[in-house]
Amino acid sequence: MKIGFIGLGQMGRGMAARLLERGHELVVWNRTRAAVEAAEARGARVALRVEDVLQNEVVITMLADDAAVEAVWITPALLQKMPAGSLHLNMASVSLRMAKRLTGLHQVCGAQYVSAPVFGRPQAAASGQLDIVAAGPKDAIARCAALFEALGKQWFDLGTEPAQANIVKIARNYLLGTIVESLGEAFALVGKSGVEPAKFLEIITSTSMNSPAYRNYGRMIVEKPEHATFTLKLGMKDVELALQAGGETGVPMPMGAVMREQHLAAINRGYGERDWASLGNYIAESAGL
Amino acid sequence: MKIGFIGLGQMGRGMAARLLERGHELVVWNRTRAAVEAAEARGARVALRVEDVLQNEVVITMLADDAAVEAVWITPALLQKMPAGSLHLNMASVSLRMAKRLTGLHQVCGAQYVSAPVFGRPQAAASGQLDIVAAGPKDAIARCAALFEALGKQWFDLGTEPAQANIVKIARNYLLGTIVESLGEAFALVGKSGVEPAKFLEIITSTSMNSPAYRNYGRMIVEKPEHATFTLKLGMKDVELALQAGGETGVPMPMGAVMREQHLAAINRGYGERDWASLGNYIAESAGL
Amino acid sequence: MKIGFIGLGQMGRGMAARLLERGHELVVWNRTRAAVEAAEARGARVALRVEDVLQNEVVITMLADDAAVEAVWITPALLQKMPAGSLHLNMASVSLRMAKRLTGLHQVCGAQYVSAPVFGRPQAAASGQLDIVAAGPKDAIARCAALFEALGKQWFDLGTEPAQANIVKIARNYLLGTIVESLGEAFALVGKSGVEPAKFLEIITSTSMNSPAYRNYGRMIVEKPEHATFTLKLGMKDVELALQAGGETGVPMPMGAVMREQHLAAINRGYGERDWASLGNYIAESAGL
Amino acid sequence: MKIGFIGLGQMGRGMAARLLERGHELVVWNRTRAAVEAAEARGARVALRVEDVLQNEVVITMLADDAAVEAVWITPALLQKMPAGSLHLNMASVSLRMAKRLTGLHQVCGAQYVSAPVFGRPQAAASGQLDIVAAGPKDAIARCAALFEALGKQWFDLGTEPAQANIVKIARNYLLGTIVESLGEAFALVGKSGVEPAKFLEIITSTSMNSPAYRNYGRMIVEKPEHATFTLKLGMKDVELALQAGGETGVPMPMGAVMREQHLAAINRGYGERDWASLGNYIAESAGL
Repeated sequence: MKIGFIGLGQMGRGMAARLLERGHELVVWNRTRAAVEAAEARGARVALRVEDVLQNEVVITMLADDAAVEAVWITPALLQKMPAGSLHLNMASVSLRMAKRLTGLHQVCGAQYVSAPVFGRPQAAASGQLDIVAAGPKDAIARCAALFEALGKQWFDLGTEPAQANIVKIARNYLLGTIVESLGEAFALVGKSGVEPAKFLEIITSTSMNSPAYRNYGRMIVEKPEHATFTLKLGMKDVELALQAGGETGVPMPMGAVMREQHLAAINRGYGERDWASLGNYIAESAGL
Repeated sequence: MKIGFIGLGQMGRGMAARLLERGHELVVWNRTRAAVEAAEARGARVALRVEDVLQNEVVITMLADDAAVEAVWITPALLQKMPAGSLHLNMASVSLRMAKRLTGLHQVCGAQYVSAPVFGRPQAAASGQLDIVAAGPKDAIARCAALFEALGKQWFDLGTEPAQANIVKIARNYLLGTIVESLGEAFALVGKSGVEPAKFLEIITSTSMNSPAYRNYGRMIVEKPEHATFTLKLGMKDVELALQAGGETGVPMPMGAVMREQHLAAINRGYGERDWASLGNYIAESAGL
Repeated sequence: MKIGFIGLGQMGRGMAARLLERGHELVVWNRTRAAVEAAEARGARVALRVEDVLQNEVVITMLADDAAVEAVWITPALLQKMPAGSLHLNMASVSLRMAKRLTGLHQVCGAQYVSAPVFGRPQAAASGQLDIVAAGPKDAIARCAALFEALGKQWFDLGTEPAQANIVKIARNYLLGTIVESLGEAFALVGKSGVEPAKFLEIITSTSMNSPAYRNYGRMIVEKPEHATFTLKLGMKDVELALQAGGETGVPMPMGAVMREQHLAAINRGYGERDWASLGNYIAESAGL
Repeated sequence: MKIGFIGLGQMGRGMAARLLERGHELVVWNRTRAAVEAAEARGARVALRVEDVLQNEVVITMLADDAAVEAVWITPALLQKMPAGSLHLNMASVSLRMAKRLTGLHQVCGAQYVSAPVFGRPQAAASGQLDIVAAGPKDAIARCAALFEALGKQWFDLGTEPAQANIVKIARNYLLGTIVESLGEAFALVGKSGVEPAKFLEIITSTSMNSPAYRNYGRMIVEKPEHATFTLKLGMKDVELALQAGGETGVPMPMGAVMREQHLAAINRGYGERDWASLGNYIAESAGL
């Protein structure tokens, strides 16, 4: 398929590489030049102006956050420049508010819009092992199916309302945050009584909590990796997306509320650029360990 | 093995049945008569006085909570009446404080004490599918191994300090509570935007949260079973055990703190005798769903 | 003084009336016509276009929130249309972010900008009994002093940085919220043991908590007035302004975090349009009273 | 009046001195000898055995906490040794549970029991400036009135149920805690934007928060006194008394819940033996100030 691709950040570059590998034709654009070179080396055509990626069947955007969508997509009115019949596939995470706003803008223009945020870190993006939650008009989803199969190990169809894919992504990332915080508290609790967190982790992941999320975050809390694949600051942004969506739709989330403040305190203690898992290390510190 | 067994509640009666089935000889005692009849029918001898269960190699206690341990075990000074060389195997959940107190009392008397709380609901108890976390003197643990194998699908040796098994149990149950609360909040969040919680559950348990705890509690929040196997009130007790242990060892647990208050509010709304999972239904109600 | 006045909401109309009473000349504008009639009857000139209020020594804005400032002041670029040497006196509450943005915009234009949010409900506005916290360039503050004296029973000079007046207003309103929530919890606590909240209120306001805020909010929680002078929904907005400012400047506010969720739950229970004090009634309900 | 006085801690010694000064005859007892000497020097008779204070019209107890009441009063069964017609006046703070238990024990023995906890720090105790909340049988209260007038600048009659005085004391101290925490958060919020907390304090205590509690705690947060008159650890105990009472009577107190965890974290950072007000300094530290 001929694909325009906007946004070659950590996730986007892996996804672009994967699509090229699977034989798709890509025209890519990124705000900084450096990021496009790897894609070019893999056979992508590099657009000098962002408008030049629009002449394709599908335009994928993978922009960092609401502000990036505002700056790159909405303010330059790219939507109005898309040819009739083309499709905008937004695979990045945005707020519920932005999701609804984008849906409205596309409806006004009569353009097809699919929201399909992904679960997974950059490595999963590069190897086609993402989990994808998609929502949008039935025929638009159908047009994207081949892309979802290239990029994901599975994908879920959430119906015709694009924002519903976003709220699922937001709620799922929120749950990841609750796992980090709760593991951090539980590790501190057993640790203060002399039980090794690694031992505790082995027990719970051998029993009712034997899921990748507990294993991966638990291991990272224990091992304290130098390199962050997803920073605590970004984790805080995800918690805030959940709280904001909760505020707009009327969902009290007291657990999320205290988590956000924990993130703020952890950032003040220097954990902001470390991995999200380091929230657990902040909790240990706060417990005097 | 000749076993004394005190406490035939929902969990105890299943465990006793299992031990009988595996060929052990049991003398059982319970505060109410009704509970012992099923064990008697399965071949247990029924003690009329609690002292009469003490003349056995191992005495298992499976008492509901600290208050029951105080009333049944400590106040009548059963410990002093145990024959030399016998072993007290406490498989119930008690507070960290009570765990340390029991350890101290047994040390003073020179009696062997193993703490081995279990994970699992009554059905797992009856079918030998518990997970067991054990701690106590090395040789005492060795003497209990056959019992752990009869009762559990796996067991973990947490070293020589009995209270460490208890803190692991407390921390693990605390994590279960965080799963219920966080799922409740996430379900309410997606539900308010029109996504079916069951659909959301399917997605997260097909991806990074595919563990029994998410599946079981998630399903119960969705299905709202009439019958509680573990009530919300008991769940609140578990959260309080964690907070109390945190207070005594100096571990701030802000997530646990708000969870406790959620339980209190849910009880005021009539959820106390429903399953722990119904905390999620309270959260939905509180979100106006 | 010749004053332009934009925004005749509940607060603005009282302030405008007071200024007229004290002999100032006012040109007023409001988004809806109805609100200006009372001011006109009192001698104000009514501007048909918002631009027509700009030709005055001082232009006071009293707009409801950030969105209103954006719509009425920023988008139509009123700032660029102000005559040289005039002064914009913003007496409304805006977010810390908006306060900084407005400061920046005025600096760029070389216009004088004073931020002077007020404490007090509409009745205090109409009777010159407000408390005013002002910040801005020294000479600009000096120019506003007579207005502060007309409108307030006292005013505080917070220095040259306009946003510092806003953060003081935000933090003070945040404290009001904590008083409502904490009184609500304390009333429920004594109430559940059979002590009348009114009796408890009498005791604490006769001792270490004898301040207007405790007296007024306490009395309103007890008396549950039909008519709201400041709604719970607006109170929630104030709590959110504090949390947002905390997020931007790195201040964990765990108490504020749980308060926001309480407001959300109270709104779902129908308290949104009642007085802020009704948060205490929600808390009583949640305690099963 | 002839008074037995048990418990000469920081508060008790001031109260005893005050009663002697006002002409009452005291027989005093304390667990440690050192504390009684000052009272002896002021004219009190010192009892060698605690039983020896019981032969008086009124026996005042001012014991540190539930554990001290248990050890000094309940375990030695002092109640049974009181002469007929004597009255036990408990002026210390105990938990709601202990308050009810003491009431029950006295009813069984047919002894008169008045609960009359006090508000105020040691200096107020020594100068008769306490605030006293009393509850108990009408005639018993009447018998104590002269003592309340000697010790307090005012006293409140809360009716016939002793525990109601205790819940009022618990709820009032809880409110003090909320003031410390909320001031701490508000100070950090304005401080991070460059506003001096002392300036902010001046503003709020000149307006709607002009009460002793805001002034005193606010000043202590700003001035960070070396010497604690009431430690943060004791403050945490008070918050826990409120949460415990809330748990027993079914009152969700989410604000209290997060406050307790803040205290725990502050203790881990070394604030436990500093004044309760230092919770505000912990909050500033946690905000990176």
